[in-house]
This record gives sequence, C-alpha cells and structure tokens, in this order.
Amino acid sequence: MSSLSDKQIDLQLEDLAGWQRDGNGIIKSYKFNDFIEAISFMNQVAFHAEALEHHPEWHNTYNVVDVRLTTHDTGGITSLDIRLAKRMEHIIQPKHL
Amino acid sequence: MSSLSDKQIDLQLEDLAGWQRDGNGIIKSYKFNDFIEAISFMNQVAFHAEALEHHPEWHNTYNVVDVRLTTHDTGGITSLDIRLAKRMEHIIQPKHL
Repeated sequence: MSSLSDKQIDLQLEDLAGWQRDGNGIIKSYKFNDFIEAISFMNQVAFHAEALEHHPEWHNTYNVVDVRLTTHDTGGITSLDIRLAKRMEHIIQPKHL
Repeated sequence: MSSLSDKQIDLQLEDLAGWQRDGNGIIKSYKFNDFIEAISFMNQVAFHAEALEHHPEWHNTYNVVDVRLTTHDTGGITSLDIRLAKRMEHIIQPKHL
C-alpha cells in the first residue's frame, strides 16, 4: 500500500462528484433531509469501513456529515481512501463500486 | 426553554463525569475499544437524540467520539443538553436517567 501521486488522485477525483483534495486527505460534505438520514448513511458506511479495515474521520451535525479520508499508515491518500469514497457514493446513488 | 445559569450548569456537571464547559456548550471525549463500539454508541445515542428532538454535534475517528452539546434556539446550555448528556452516560454506564 503506497500513497497515490497527485496525478492519480486528480484522476480518481474526476469520478467522485463533490469530493476534493484537502492536503493529505480527501473531503466531502454530505447533506441529508434530516438526522435519521444522516445517521443511517453513517451506519451503512460503517459496515464498509469495517470490511475495508479503513475508517473515516467524520463530523455530524443534525443533517450534515462532513467526511475526511486519509491513510495514516502512508501519511497520504491511497486506494483505500478512493474505495471508501466510492462506496459512500454508491450508498448515496447506487452505481459506483 | 431557557438557558441555564452558570451556577446551574456547574451543579449539573458535578454529576456528569468527564463533561466540561466549552463556551455555550458542554463537551466530552468518549474513547472506546474499537470502531464498532464507537459507532454502536453513536447509534444508541441517536435514538435518544431523536426522542428528545435534540441532537449532538460529534466527531468520530476510529474509536474516539468527541461530543459537543449546545442549544441553538437559546444560544446557550439548556436542560435538553443535560438530559442528552445523562443519557449518553447511561449508555456507557447504566445508572443515570
């Protein structure tokens, strides 16, 4: 597992609507209709995070979930971050994976 | 519903181990054994938050959940924040409520 290059990251982000680079991580702010939807999203993501053994840093306030993905082991962005981001998008809009 | 006074808040915090004042809110950092325990705690809290119609601001990184409670309607700390904090403590160590 090694960090992706800037070029690789930019290429991956093209397929990840709303995701952007934030230093050694990638971020997205998800907005839902209410708290139940937000926490339900987090739960669905949680199972994928466990399966990937890769976990998000995230903040929730009512209907908003701000996510940051980074790979501590490499200090950068790896394919694990991209995979988890894609699974989040799949949950929101089932087409990715 | 009105904000509690400083005295009232101090008094309530005496019964809430690990909770402290943070401006117009109260905060606590919960540490668990792993991610599953952390997200399970958040889920249990979520049902109480919905029941109280009062929701936390919280951040999760793996096994840590940092919580901040405040009441936006009054711009201060109200009995709702205290009730939600007590329910969180009850989840951790069933005795409060």
